[in-house]
Amino acid sequence: MSWLTATYLVESEPERIEARAAAIASEQSVECPLEAIGDARILDEIVARVAAIEPDGENRYRVDVQIATQTIGTNPAQFINMVFGNASLWDNVQLADLALPPTVLERFAGPRHGIAGIRALLDAPQRALTNAAMKPQGMHVPELAALCRTFALAGIDIIKDDHGIDDQWYSPFAERVRACQAAVGEAVRATGKPALYAPNMIGTPRMLRERARIAREEGVRVVLIAPMLVGLPSFLDLVDEFPEFVYLAHPSHAGARRIAEPLLFGRLMRLFGTDAVIFVNFGGRFGYPQPVCGALAEGARAPWGALRPTLPVPAGGMLLERVEELLTFYGPDTMLLIGGNLLIERAAILERTTAFVERVAAFPFPAPAGARAHAHPLSR
Amino acid sequence: MSWLTATYLVESEPERIEARAAAIASEQSVECPLEAIGDARILDEIVARVAAIEPDGENRYRVDVQIATQTIGTNPAQFINMVFGNASLWDNVQLADLALPPTVLERFAGPRHGIAGIRALLDAPQRALTNAAMKPQGMHVPELAALCRTFALAGIDIIKDDHGIDDQWYSPFAERVRACQAAVGEAVRATGKPALYAPNMIGTPRMLRERARIAREEGVRVVLIAPMLVGLPSFLDLVDEFPEFVYLAHPSHAGARRIAEPLLFGRLMRLFGTDAVIFVNFGGRFGYPQPVCGALAEGARAPWGALRPTLPVPAGGMLLERVEELLTFYGPDTMLLIGGNLLIERAAILERTTAFVERVAAFPFPAPAGARAHAHPLSR
Repeated sequence: MSWLTATYLVESEPERIEARAAAIASEQSVECPLEAIGDARILDEIVARVAAIEPDGENRYRVDVQIATQTIGTNPAQFINMVFGNASLWDNVQLADLALPPTVLERFAGPRHGIAGIRALLDAPQRALTNAAMKPQGMHVPELAALCRTFALAGIDIIKDDHGIDDQWYSPFAERVRACQAAVGEAVRATGKPALYAPNMIGTPRMLRERARIAREEGVRVVLIAPMLVGLPSFLDLVDEFPEFVYLAHPSHAGARRIAEPLLFGRLMRLFGTDAVIFVNFGGRFGYPQPVCGALAEGARAPWGALRPTLPVPAGGMLLERVEELLTFYGPDTMLLIGGNLLIERAAILERTTAFVERVAAFPFPAPAGARAHAHPLSR
Repeated sequence: MSWLTATYLVESEPERIEARAAAIASEQSVECPLEAIGDARILDEIVARVAAIEPDGENRYRVDVQIATQTIGTNPAQFINMVFGNASLWDNVQLADLALPPTVLERFAGPRHGIAGIRALLDAPQRALTNAAMKPQGMHVPELAALCRTFALAGIDIIKDDHGIDDQWYSPFAERVRACQAAVGEAVRATGKPALYAPNMIGTPRMLRERARIAREEGVRVVLIAPMLVGLPSFLDLVDEFPEFVYLAHPSHAGARRIAEPLLFGRLMRLFGTDAVIFVNFGGRFGYPQPVCGALAEGARAPWGALRPTLPVPAGGMLLERVEELLTFYGPDTMLLIGGNLLIERAAILERTTAFVERVAAFPFPAPAGARAHAHPLSR
């Protein structure tokens, strides 16, 4: 028998917390009154158990629940079902953390490329990486391709579609991928520096598979995908069927979940195959607190079973002026994504983007060459 | 040009609400500063617009945003991306409502069977319907099949797997479906009354397709599925590929979203193909407020474009003693799901379940025979 531990943050009056914790354990396993269970094996081996209840502020508790790993299956749908299924229906319960035994970690392959794979593709073994986005949606394919070329000429590492770009008439998928991939290729031949175009993949599983085939035929190496929009199970299938792609996860719709950000973005995305994870940075348009961002980056990169590390990609209202501050905080195993801020002067996109690339390349990291992120000040 | 209207509930200081509304419109369309947009067509036809801001309590506002329908695609991933993508990353923004023009409704086929199709399968043209669940997970297949048979003998209309039952060693999918389907068939031959077994379908898209094939071969007509766990896009593909199934939606993990319950359960589930929707009833273990449950049932059943009505299935801590109260509130186009409460006396399951079926069958609805739900007191 083996158990995983799920930690929930529960708002509750003190006199009710024991009953509430027991109710969570029931919902996340057998979902029926214990007196309705006649079988000792089920009581002993299937019913989840409350392992600890700790105060965490006024009328707030951390509740550890042990969940039988034989219930959680081998796919993200059943996994989430068993760790945050019915309990999600209480709006004062948040999934805060998960401790997964090796037998669970082994069920998932995680990132196929991870930080090292991305660095190898870009021939950038040590420095921090750069990411830019093609905005606004609505532009026609030749304009998108021209913007792609400009970003690649400026030296950006990964150039991604805006996440709102699907397969609309103004920039159809196949035509767009062909043109943008060609534009980047042309710039790379001119500069001699690698750059990768990442088209946005969105749709039902059948649409995703069809688009993945098109992207593969065009030589695409990185794709943008929002796992919380396509669904984690569909994402897992795609990674499994098209392992040659680097998967750059977008956070669209992910905020609507009541799952702690470091867990969702730092670890669950990694468990299910994300190579690089975009998240909203502190001090930007969305403003997660700085310690949350730190814990998230830590979870993405720290040793975790046999899973490759995932590259943290802070984004969301990023400013050119903050490059040094952010690299100091996040360390070299980071990709900075600046979107709209590179575009605010349409005539000066090349200049602003070149400045971004140069500031990232020139940043003197305090850690010795080759040091891993855990040696960085961010990590305790 | 055509626009849909998304309504958001936003917590904000009064002096900031205009800027916040404008920020939502930007995030849900172009996601970049307006000054970065050089093209008048994009400004006129793609950028979302704030249509109204209305106070809704202290430091709380209803914000109507018009979103260009040409941006939202034809699949649930892109649809949710454009109505609640990045804006979900603000934890004080909730998606409260959607007004969809006919051009959007026409992109989705909705339920393939709906209330009328379920009634036809069960040969129950007017009365309210009954649903029971096989709990706890962990039981072996012969025990599950025996429970299935008991429920069918008692006259239950739809007998569903507990939503935690996946493909675990203790009740593998193929073996379970064969045994439970046979057990129900046997009971139906004995009683002469139709009953349907609904296996739980959970997994990645590839797993779902494989299990759907098995279920089809065994003659299954209803399947249980949690769209928020498998992902709405994967759900849509499945409904499209296997339209012969009645889809009974389970709410697992759905509570973790910041989408108003009547919208999510009553209408989005219907839009994307749910024939019957399970939701947590007022006064039960989870306790949505009664008006929320009323609005949810209303949204599932009210006329909406060409979409068939979806059957509301209140659940979650339902008690036998509440049958009459709930039928009075919900009306005849309803299926009551009683789970654990039928099982609390293991020796008396047949008797309790028979009592449940009889109370539902005997309930004297005040509305005239053949009246639709909108003629019922629940509807204004």
